[in-house]
Amino acid sequence: MADQYAQNPVGDEPPPLPALRWSEPPEGPVLVLLDQTRLPAEEVELVCTDVPALVQAIQTLAVRGAPLLGIAGAYGVALAAARGYDVEEAAPLLEGARPTAVNLAYGVRRAVAAYRAAADKGPEEAAQAALTAARELHREDAEASAQMAGHGLALLDELLPGGGHRILTHCNTGALVSGGEGTAFAVALHAHRAGELRRLWVDETRPLLQGARLTAYEAARNGMPYTLLTDSAAGSLFAAGEVDAVLIGADRIAADGSVANKVGSYPLAVLAKYHHVPFIVVAPTTTVDLSTPDGASIEVEQRAGHEVTEVTAPQVPAAAGAVGGGLPVAPLGTQAYNPAFDVTPPDLVTAIVTELGALSPVTGGGIAELCARSRQVTIS
Amino acid sequence: MADQYAQNPVGDEPPPLPALRWSEPPEGPVLVLLDQTRLPAEEVELVCTDVPALVQAIQTLAVRGAPLLGIAGAYGVALAAARGYDVEEAAPLLEGARPTAVNLAYGVRRAVAAYRAAADKGPEEAAQAALTAARELHREDAEASAQMAGHGLALLDELLPGGGHRILTHCNTGALVSGGEGTAFAVALHAHRAGELRRLWVDETRPLLQGARLTAYEAARNGMPYTLLTDSAAGSLFAAGEVDAVLIGADRIAADGSVANKVGSYPLAVLAKYHHVPFIVVAPTTTVDLSTPDGASIEVEQRAGHEVTEVTAPQVPAAAGAVGGGLPVAPLGTQAYNPAFDVTPPDLVTAIVTELGALSPVTGGGIAELCARSRQVTIS
Repeated sequence: MADQYAQNPVGDEPPPLPALRWSEPPEGPVLVLLDQTRLPAEEVELVCTDVPALVQAIQTLAVRGAPLLGIAGAYGVALAAARGYDVEEAAPLLEGARPTAVNLAYGVRRAVAAYRAAADKGPEEAAQAALTAARELHREDAEASAQMAGHGLALLDELLPGGGHRILTHCNTGALVSGGEGTAFAVALHAHRAGELRRLWVDETRPLLQGARLTAYEAARNGMPYTLLTDSAAGSLFAAGEVDAVLIGADRIAADGSVANKVGSYPLAVLAKYHHVPFIVVAPTTTVDLSTPDGASIEVEQRAGHEVTEVTAPQVPAAAGAVGGGLPVAPLGTQAYNPAFDVTPPDLVTAIVTELGALSPVTGGGIAELCARSRQVTIS
Repeated sequence: MADQYAQNPVGDEPPPLPALRWSEPPEGPVLVLLDQTRLPAEEVELVCTDVPALVQAIQTLAVRGAPLLGIAGAYGVALAAARGYDVEEAAPLLEGARPTAVNLAYGVRRAVAAYRAAADKGPEEAAQAALTAARELHREDAEASAQMAGHGLALLDELLPGGGHRILTHCNTGALVSGGEGTAFAVALHAHRAGELRRLWVDETRPLLQGARLTAYEAARNGMPYTLLTDSAAGSLFAAGEVDAVLIGADRIAADGSVANKVGSYPLAVLAKYHHVPFIVVAPTTTVDLSTPDGASIEVEQRAGHEVTEVTAPQVPAAAGAVGGGLPVAPLGTQAYNPAFDVTPPDLVTAIVTELGALSPVTGGGIAELCARSRQVTIS
């Protein structure tokens, strides 16, 4: 094991990283996003003045991550209302921007419900109600993040007494996906602050490299000891006994406890099972969708093949014949299979950590009980 | 499963693809390599006039793949001898160029042994003997490739009666790694020619994308039905029942049957086991190293972290601070864990197919027997 415990640059305690904020300049209200497609090279803000711009930002992953998509969806409804657009037309556009993360639909519906409930008080009051709902969801998510981090760290300490945790994570689940410090990443961050994180193994997460671009960025920002690896090098770490636990987020949790998350999560679950390593999912209860009975019922977004066949970056010139406007790494015309998510069945999940605590073992009954205890606003 | 069975461009029967050839222009003998780092964008030849140039070509992966490295090593000795360099000095440079593929050491030692055996007849005769040994190894590898393809296809037909095979492969194991049509890829190619290949699933194979760049190139060239995917999307294919068999090559096979191959092979073996899918290794007996007792004894090459943290291509401008001269995809200073290979234990390998037939189950006794039957030239 050569260099993988080498130290990374450590900075001072970083300023907060707002992935998204509501702003009301004189020209009218806007939703300001940190453009995640430009990280880690540049911190660039993207200003959305209408719903189509926000939909495009969601589809290009300028804003992403299940909890944050919920918040963005709710603010999107508030934006439509505040700008006088038809909320009933805007809502399905927002909800349909990406199909897998249930939080997006939840956030949209919650703001729409608040808007409708205040509709008889006039458009301004209704718009204000939608904004209040979005802000509530934003604040609740930040609180849920802190609670998940606490419950997750307690679970780690219980499963792995002695500290010195070596945690493997996939995709990005930090402040960039949340109103707070995130889901799985927040647990690792709290472990770090408690002096209990020996190493954060960061899967690069192909094809869009959210691990390399975003998780490494957040880990470096927070001075955490982290090491990047290709997704398939995780197998070597398991085989060498270098992984104490896998921590990931979730985009949708079905009623039976099946977990849809970034593609590559399922192979890690199988490896973790084979190596008797805990596989822990960290997600707020808003990620549970009781109307999805099981894993097979989860719609998995299929994304464009050029995410796999081309390298795309502002610095990379578009090549002739490249459908994605990037640099082809495969022969032109190559077809790619590019599911954005995969589904891990509940028997491979050691625990699901929510703001209400850790559920283990993961069963349909346990999921139902969680949802009954959740303060999640019910929307008809 | 959206588009993954889409058709790829189909060409005419392609001309042979010589990954390497010996040439004797008036200026003196040279070893000509097809520069694999430039594929699929350009077919550029790289002319090696001395051993340091060949060592560099091996280390930068301009020439790669276990069987081909053996052939290149043998020709490298012949080149040193023909050009009047000190063979005894050149041999360890070649052998040490990369540590994991045992074929490289085997090819070098075989040519050196031939050189030494003819040394008392004078330097010209000795150089000729080294060249003859290299050409023999080259021809034997082409023959072994054809034999492996036949045995491999017979095994597939036995394990999966009915044809219509959907084969998942990792890295590149075709004509670009061999004196013939390759190892695992050759089996898929013969299945294709027999009308029995329904789909070749091609793992892109991070970090250097040998699957996307080279296997997709060879598959397109041969008109095979192929689909590219990120390495970790393979899990989704297994879960969906879309993989009938995994076929990979090997860089070294230990005496107990442990298989070192491109990083990412081991996770596929664990997934294949979990899904009861055959996991088949295709490699000539020259890949077996009886002096390596088991998997733990295999030296795994650790490569530079910038292969993971940067995108490098001739079209991509070098960025300030990028140690690998590429475009950083992770924060500057990020450390990466980048083993080139991983090791799969024999209990996860359904069969090893060599030029002598299929060994299944894989046991130390079976490996010993294979080697005893091999025509592999024994070198003291």
